[in-house]
Amino acid sequence: MKINLGVVGAGIASKELHLPALRNLSELFTVVAVNSRTRKKAEEFAGIVGGNVTVFDSYEEMLSSEFVDAVVLAVPIALNPKMIAAAKRANKPVICEKPVAASVKEAAPLLRLSGDSPVYIAENYRHIEVYKKAAELLKEDKIGKPLAFSWLKWVDFGQDNKYVQTKWRQTPEHVGGFISDGGVHDVAALRKILGDAEEVSGFSKKSLDYLGAENCVVFNMTLENGVIGNYSVVYGAPVSLNRFEIVGTDGLMLVDKDGATIEVFAADREKIFVNKTDGFVEEFKDFYNVIRGENNSLGTIDETILDLATIEAGLVSAAEKRIVAVNSLLEESR
Amino acid sequence: MKINLGVVGAGIASKELHLPALRNLSELFTVVAVNSRTRKKAEEFAGIVGGNVTVFDSYEEMLSSEFVDAVVLAVPIALNPKMIAAAKRANKPVICEKPVAASVKEAAPLLRLSGDSPVYIAENYRHIEVYKKAAELLKEDKIGKPLAFSWLKWVDFGQDNKYVQTKWRQTPEHVGGFISDGGVHDVAALRKILGDAEEVSGFSKKSLDYLGAENCVVFNMTLENGVIGNYSVVYGAPVSLNRFEIVGTDGLMLVDKDGATIEVFAADREKIFVNKTDGFVEEFKDFYNVIRGENNSLGTIDETILDLATIEAGLVSAAEKRIVAVNSLLEESR
Repeated sequence: MKINLGVVGAGIASKELHLPALRNLSELFTVVAVNSRTRKKAEEFAGIVGGNVTVFDSYEEMLSSEFVDAVVLAVPIALNPKMIAAAKRANKPVICEKPVAASVKEAAPLLRLSGDSPVYIAENYRHIEVYKKAAELLKEDKIGKPLAFSWLKWVDFGQDNKYVQTKWRQTPEHVGGFISDGGVHDVAALRKILGDAEEVSGFSKKSLDYLGAENCVVFNMTLENGVIGNYSVVYGAPVSLNRFEIVGTDGLMLVDKDGATIEVFAADREKIFVNKTDGFVEEFKDFYNVIRGENNSLGTIDETILDLATIEAGLVSAAEKRIVAVNSLLEESR
Repeated sequence: MKINLGVVGAGIASKELHLPALRNLSELFTVVAVNSRTRKKAEEFAGIVGGNVTVFDSYEEMLSSEFVDAVVLAVPIALNPKMIAAAKRANKPVICEKPVAASVKEAAPLLRLSGDSPVYIAENYRHIEVYKKAAELLKEDKIGKPLAFSWLKWVDFGQDNKYVQTKWRQTPEHVGGFISDGGVHDVAALRKILGDAEEVSGFSKKSLDYLGAENCVVFNMTLENGVIGNYSVVYGAPVSLNRFEIVGTDGLMLVDKDGATIEVFAADREKIFVNKTDGFVEEFKDFYNVIRGENNSLGTIDETILDLATIEAGLVSAAEKRIVAVNSLLEESR
């Protein structure tokens, strides 16, 4: 049975990330409605989708509509919690972009929502094959016992970048601006491969005003399995780089998402090619299955809060000059 | 006028680092004496030097000998302070390997020594051309305003490595074992290029018993010029890597000591080849000039203590779970 989707938000994510994925999944989903704060953008989106798409002036109206089976949220981050809660009250399944909230504190009430309709958080990195494969290789002792990791990310977002030009990203209500917006993805991958973080310490810097918040961070982490590592990010760098390396007792591993390859330098040097995964397609497929009654393991609120808490711990460490336990943020917010 | 040197310690540094340099500088120095805790090693060293080399059974005897003009210390790190002090009392110029002491606290009394004979700390990285050149390029705004740095170092020291087999390195009295032994070099280079560190936070791990102390560290730093960065080290890695990158507003710079090259990715991509410098030759040349009355700028106790304090701040941060100001270690030790 096909599911009729109401899309909320007609910005970059809806148009450029979700819509292509949904077109790929036309046997599972039909986009039947759209709502945006700007009616003109909603109409434009309806035009792009084509066919019979209802433009709703309010989210509440969409939620009470009988022909909308489920909703897709791609709205400014700070709006997510109350819009998820409203979907729950309307008993409509909801898939929502990450981060799920502006902070762990704002996300925590989501853990106490009542109702049976599923809430699914769209973290595409949890669906990407190269990260699954990296986790498997570690379990197979490909590089021996992991000792440390290094994740260095430079992002060449200039003033004319489309994300930078989004208004709500220019004056972000979500913690750390781009640092959490992008960072929760990387933490999702890191946790999948190496496990959860226990403590984070870091420094941050706001060196480019047009980026709205901290644009440089250096975060160190201790993981539950004893591995230590560093996650460093610079937004507004002149060149992009995304280098994630794990060193173990018997070898090292370079995990390249964009190339969908894992280079292993162990007894032999080996380059493993992994299927390129469209994480957006995969997350919508999984959402479909969850609506049909399957267990939600990759899109839970618990998982997404752990991603956010890890990044927020680094930002709090930098602001308050102390080492922050990830769990302490979760406990404080409960 | 040639200077007659008495060499103290007949281990790896004396034989493999200093002696080749001194042979290159035979117009400046003559090795005339050697002292080691193990007479056999001293005799072996005298044999390697050739010619007329006196083997002293005690350092004190060597210091009181009239034909020894200056001494070279390449001894277990914890012994440096008292042996430097003894050289001062004997009014003999002394050049001493780094780190100058087992900790900042042990090094601090060296700042209060009286006497006019020079004390020179042999930090070869302060003499390496590629680091001088990198500092110049930054000053010339080659990559714009520096934002962040990343220094990732993996060292493939196995159990059979000659340094690992040194007894005093297996049960190190110096803070952090190899982490400070090797780390002070990198900090010397970092300070030369980007300036002094203000605060350090980090995590450390001891994952390989044969390495004697912490073998994995991830240190974050804030520098006085506002740059933040990360310095991560794993000893006992299966592969070696030494990657030092600086990202600025207009480009990035990859500084490769071993290749003596600087890769700049700015408006143009450019690879700058720098003279390969033998830091050991350069430091002994400089020591000679300092003995002849020139100003000591690259081999001072102040400089070497700042190198050590930066690494020690990271180790203290990891052990005590707090962010540590580099200056606080200097102040506490005074």
